[in-house]
Amino acid sequence: MKELDKQISEVLEHIISIRRYIHQNPELGYEEKATSKLVAQELKSSGLAVQEGVGGYGVVGILEGNHPGKTLLLRADMDALPMEEETGLPFSSKIPGIMHACGHDIHTAILLGVARVLSKYKDFIAGQIKFVFQPAEECSPQGGAQKMIKEGILENPDVDYALALHVWPQLYVGEIGLCSGPCSAKSDRFFLKVTGKSGHASAPHQGIDALVAAADIISSMQTIVSRRVDPRDSIVISIGKITGGQRYNVICDKVEMEGTVRIMTPGYEDEIRKYMNQVGQGIAYAHGTSFEMNYLKGYPMVINDDRLTQRVKDILTEKIGENAVKNISQDTSGEDFSFISQKVPSVYMKLGSSPKDAKEVLPLHNSRVIFDEGCIPFGIKALVALSLELLHQEE
Amino acid sequence: MKELDKQISEVLEHIISIRRYIHQNPELGYEEKATSKLVAQELKSSGLAVQEGVGGYGVVGILEGNHPGKTLLLRADMDALPMEEETGLPFSSKIPGIMHACGHDIHTAILLGVARVLSKYKDFIAGQIKFVFQPAEECSPQGGAQKMIKEGILENPDVDYALALHVWPQLYVGEIGLCSGPCSAKSDRFFLKVTGKSGHASAPHQGIDALVAAADIISSMQTIVSRRVDPRDSIVISIGKITGGQRYNVICDKVEMEGTVRIMTPGYEDEIRKYMNQVGQGIAYAHGTSFEMNYLKGYPMVINDDRLTQRVKDILTEKIGENAVKNISQDTSGEDFSFISQKVPSVYMKLGSSPKDAKEVLPLHNSRVIFDEGCIPFGIKALVALSLELLHQEE
Amino acid sequence: MKELDKQISEVLEHIISIRRYIHQNPELGYEEKATSKLVAQELKSSGLAVQEGVGGYGVVGILEGNHPGKTLLLRADMDALPMEEETGLPFSSKIPGIMHACGHDIHTAILLGVARVLSKYKDFIAGQIKFVFQPAEECSPQGGAQKMIKEGILENPDVDYALALHVWPQLYVGEIGLCSGPCSAKSDRFFLKVTGKSGHASAPHQGIDALVAAADIISSMQTIVSRRVDPRDSIVISIGKITGGQRYNVICDKVEMEGTVRIMTPGYEDEIRKYMNQVGQGIAYAHGTSFEMNYLKGYPMVINDDRLTQRVKDILTEKIGENAVKNISQDTSGEDFSFISQKVPSVYMKLGSSPKDAKEVLPLHNSRVIFDEGCIPFGIKALVALSLELLHQEE
Amino acid sequence: MKELDKQISEVLEHIISIRRYIHQNPELGYEEKATSKLVAQELKSSGLAVQEGVGGYGVVGILEGNHPGKTLLLRADMDALPMEEETGLPFSSKIPGIMHACGHDIHTAILLGVARVLSKYKDFIAGQIKFVFQPAEECSPQGGAQKMIKEGILENPDVDYALALHVWPQLYVGEIGLCSGPCSAKSDRFFLKVTGKSGHASAPHQGIDALVAAADIISSMQTIVSRRVDPRDSIVISIGKITGGQRYNVICDKVEMEGTVRIMTPGYEDEIRKYMNQVGQGIAYAHGTSFEMNYLKGYPMVINDDRLTQRVKDILTEKIGENAVKNISQDTSGEDFSFISQKVPSVYMKLGSSPKDAKEVLPLHNSRVIFDEGCIPFGIKALVALSLELLHQEE
Repeated sequence: MKELDKQISEVLEHIISIRRYIHQNPELGYEEKATSKLVAQELKSSGLAVQEGVGGYGVVGILEGNHPGKTLLLRADMDALPMEEETGLPFSSKIPGIMHACGHDIHTAILLGVARVLSKYKDFIAGQIKFVFQPAEECSPQGGAQKMIKEGILENPDVDYALALHVWPQLYVGEIGLCSGPCSAKSDRFFLKVTGKSGHASAPHQGIDALVAAADIISSMQTIVSRRVDPRDSIVISIGKITGGQRYNVICDKVEMEGTVRIMTPGYEDEIRKYMNQVGQGIAYAHGTSFEMNYLKGYPMVINDDRLTQRVKDILTEKIGENAVKNISQDTSGEDFSFISQKVPSVYMKLGSSPKDAKEVLPLHNSRVIFDEGCIPFGIKALVALSLELLHQEE
Repeated sequence: MKELDKQISEVLEHIISIRRYIHQNPELGYEEKATSKLVAQELKSSGLAVQEGVGGYGVVGILEGNHPGKTLLLRADMDALPMEEETGLPFSSKIPGIMHACGHDIHTAILLGVARVLSKYKDFIAGQIKFVFQPAEECSPQGGAQKMIKEGILENPDVDYALALHVWPQLYVGEIGLCSGPCSAKSDRFFLKVTGKSGHASAPHQGIDALVAAADIISSMQTIVSRRVDPRDSIVISIGKITGGQRYNVICDKVEMEGTVRIMTPGYEDEIRKYMNQVGQGIAYAHGTSFEMNYLKGYPMVINDDRLTQRVKDILTEKIGENAVKNISQDTSGEDFSFISQKVPSVYMKLGSSPKDAKEVLPLHNSRVIFDEGCIPFGIKALVALSLELLHQEE
Repeated sequence: MKELDKQISEVLEHIISIRRYIHQNPELGYEEKATSKLVAQELKSSGLAVQEGVGGYGVVGILEGNHPGKTLLLRADMDALPMEEETGLPFSSKIPGIMHACGHDIHTAILLGVARVLSKYKDFIAGQIKFVFQPAEECSPQGGAQKMIKEGILENPDVDYALALHVWPQLYVGEIGLCSGPCSAKSDRFFLKVTGKSGHASAPHQGIDALVAAADIISSMQTIVSRRVDPRDSIVISIGKITGGQRYNVICDKVEMEGTVRIMTPGYEDEIRKYMNQVGQGIAYAHGTSFEMNYLKGYPMVINDDRLTQRVKDILTEKIGENAVKNISQDTSGEDFSFISQKVPSVYMKLGSSPKDAKEVLPLHNSRVIFDEGCIPFGIKALVALSLELLHQEE
Repeated sequence: MKELDKQISEVLEHIISIRRYIHQNPELGYEEKATSKLVAQELKSSGLAVQEGVGGYGVVGILEGNHPGKTLLLRADMDALPMEEETGLPFSSKIPGIMHACGHDIHTAILLGVARVLSKYKDFIAGQIKFVFQPAEECSPQGGAQKMIKEGILENPDVDYALALHVWPQLYVGEIGLCSGPCSAKSDRFFLKVTGKSGHASAPHQGIDALVAAADIISSMQTIVSRRVDPRDSIVISIGKITGGQRYNVICDKVEMEGTVRIMTPGYEDEIRKYMNQVGQGIAYAHGTSFEMNYLKGYPMVINDDRLTQRVKDILTEKIGENAVKNISQDTSGEDFSFISQKVPSVYMKLGSSPKDAKEVLPLHNSRVIFDEGCIPFGIKALVALSLELLHQEE
């Protein structure tokens, strides 16, 4: 693997500059115009055949090995989040209110690095690698993966294996987390609306205060997880955003909220939805307001193929080192790689992104989260090693 | 008064067209550029001396009677509210998100009508009338009245009496409500901020949910009025507006709220503020969040001069009719005419604005509230009659 | 009045010993057996004709003046409260869980003192005085006053005037508070029940937690006063007592609460009741529980007769002193003397009971409240003076 | 096993009558006087050596096999719960407010049946069986198991294996649930007190309402599980009981609550406690009240010995049938058999107690829960089979 390390170190500076460029110029889901163009150019300059505009701004690069064989899909996501960056990084987002807080810039950079390195190993590759850069992973329930699947990325030739990486602050740089079977959560999205009646804030009895009702709805929603769900099952109901009212001296007549439900135990969805509606309707009635919920079924759970996960684990242990591979358990994140995992044997890996001496581990989607760039060469190496082994010519 | 009715009916069509124009082109406080220009032109065309740009876009018109005497100030306000109009009126607001939901368009139109009519009665006027059109009544604590007072509208010559009207949906067209002594509430304004920590919405334990804390703060604020205040005293705490969070799948790390406190019993202010802070700090601590409050002291109570109120009542009873005058009690609205009432004997009147056959009485600041234009000639008549009597040449 | 002061000082020691005895041996409403017996004996020993067992343990003593004239009713109440006394007084309650925290012991003692003194003034009395000691004032909605009225205390001969005193910690000893017209609140009583489903506390999802629902109901009830009632009107909703659940490790399946509604503005009752039911039903539904409310209409407002109040004020000012008479306003207490005030011209007075140097003024019904016994001779003097004047023989 | 079925059927009627007698005469923890006496008599009449008064009313019966060998401990618990029975069974509890809602009557009856049957198999037993009937399993944190261990039940001779059964409504009669490793939860107990200030309910501002604060504490406690705990971990916080206030018309000055915390993930205890305290202190401060928490560490998790669990599973599969053995997962119940499992290899089993045609499965600790007596012969058979195999003479 010495040779491999050298190859990686040769492209690293370039890859990091790409990562920083993307970080500084983040684009929201379904708006990844510039990122996608950059990706396509990079892939072409690595000698790959490139298809653009697949399911929005999705890009597919094809690397043909010099021998016939299986087809491996490697996937990265490109979209950023509508958050104001507060990391203080010198290459912080230049776009107000948009930030790569979920590390998709890193995923994209790593996969570009993998393409560049593997393009020099075509002699050792039996089969084909599809480099898939998808848009809009954060846009549940209409994520980019489904759209790209619809446009045929899993076929022609049929994909035999699919791999994806996600940065993970709960692991250190130099670690890869693996989990067999279900490894993410079903991830739904909901919109709530509470309607009252506006009026002069000095005469609350003449209006109907939708905010006071909404506050009680938020509170009571907490009891679904605390009281109605088997404590052994893992359910999350998070309301991420609220907007309500017009002015400080006008009774608030409308509150709108958005949030997500995460379900790690199959079969809970209808129940949660029913409970949420019950809470909303009941509390709204109590306050003389009305309640509407729009509940969108989102991404299913990512299911890691048992056999392929074992093989990935063996390869990584052999090529990267025993200490690098961590057994982790299913978590409540949502991920549209799940749609790929439903169709072909897949493994979704967590890539450690916190420095060993981290004092505080900030979570994904935090406005101050910083991913240690040390994870980039490590991620490239892992994916290159896995590709070379999975497409190794059987003798 | 027959003559007077005739005079009013002659200007009415014009005045209503002005009212509708202002209604259709509402301007927020301190941005009343076009309205103020229109007002100035109108006053000039009625033959008044006009001063513009008084305390922002404030306008003062001077009508000198043909005899020496006292000085009477009549005041209207011109600013609109940041609300989306939903009245369905043919002359609804053309400006998205801005609406005359507090009837200041009517106040302005009535006062222009009064100027136009009185300009024909100069022979019957002993003294001077200052027509004051103020900006930014809705901009507590920095309302337009104070600014205009600072620029001298109460002096040179000193004002002897001041009158103002406000449309009032709780009274019918043809009624005027009067209340001696305190007749509005002390009106303060506050800004609240709850800060948590963002993170992926699927892992609430890695962030700190500011929205759940804010919801509890909203709920617990209700107990200040229900438990901590003498039930015989009148206090209102209304939170009119809320904004929080960034995205449906990001833990909400910041919630901002705005609202108003109305106090009808002197001496409560510090207590309410202390309780609000106690609730905010305590609940924020309970949820691991932090809380900040910015509390701005706003308008004091309007105090109607006892003797002048009695005189106004007598004049209206005689000139308009016994049934038109209604005794009403102090309410919780806030009003910067209060600053004028602190300096000169003043009377603040409520002008009935609901049609007799109204099925639903919508409150002020409601996005669907419609003021019956029948109140315009009635309001003009009342102010004209009061002016002619108060400035009547004593023999 | 010197003579009168002497007469009072002669009986005072005895009256205070009676007060302390009653204080030490408190009896709940409708169980005033011993108190009533003591009262009857006392009245007899003062030479009055006594009727016992009127409307439960009610006692009526008749003092006939030596001249014909009007009939005056003086009323005291005898029942105590189910509270644990914590005053630390040497003559604290000997009965665990029962306490005279509303001063009925003082009322009874004062009225016995009045009887004893007036029995020596029969020559100066034109007419008759009915000394009414009623049971169960605290037992709304089935108080003792109604029962005694039913048994005829207002007739035969018909009562011309009725007076009653109540100790009042918000006034000092030596002061009497008077208020014309409505002076107490309509006082209703309610019982709430929230029903869920029991189960092992470790598996909340298998039961239905009635306590979590009840908590939300308590919170949301606060919004009736804070949001739904005109802030200028005075409404109180207090839940005084709660009991719920069986054991720390059993899901709470039933919560029972009791409380009171006080209404100072006529016409609100049905609205409050409707809102309470709406809150209870809505919140209960939200949590999958059920809700029941039993709402009992209680005592109406005490209405002080305007003319009699003025006369009482004049007499007290003349006989006791100008500084002693305080104008007070209506409050939210409930009182079944209201039923008497509905039938005959009545005045209900507040008797100051805090020492001038009081550091902390504890409210009625507080387990540590102490009434200064200085109010006893003062109360006797006031009632004696009023009786002698109201029944003064007109010449 | 035919012979065994016959033996069981011969004792069954007697055992069921014992069970019903105990059910009808339930005794609370540490008060199991009559139950314990009955148990001792029964054991003696089965020919066992009996020790009474072990750790309260605990009873130990010793059955010596006719061959030397290992020592097996079988354990049942005897105490009932302070609940009002509502099952409608003909043999319902005769003691008001006490009920066997956790099936300890069944456990005791089964173990007496096992003793009676095994006493006829002494020739087949190599070693000794300790029949342990413990008091006060429901009295966390001071349960009966610890007390009996202190008095030496695990020694002299040392116990090699320990087994216990618990009825389980989530399984059908004829099923036994097994779980290797941790199978119950750490179970703590807490007492909360919120203190305000009493006063007349009509004047809430003169008191401090502890109930309104307590309500908010109950609500906010829900957010610990919903927001602060990793959704993949299993934590329960249940408040089972509440008492507060004195009377409907007195402001509630004290609320007392009791509840339990269940923790299935080691290492959470201090965090939960800290969060609970933070919620209590913060909310209490918000309302001007004070908060106290007494948190008692209770039973640890029961840990089923991996190897012994496998052996139990093999034996039951062979002797009772493959369909009878169900793999179940850890649950949130608490159990002081855990203290035994900490010292000797143990297996804690769940005994199905719902009839196959059950329409509604009521949870343990429900006042209407009925355990199908069909589980009694099945439970006896399982324990007899396990005993005979575990103490089978190795050849």
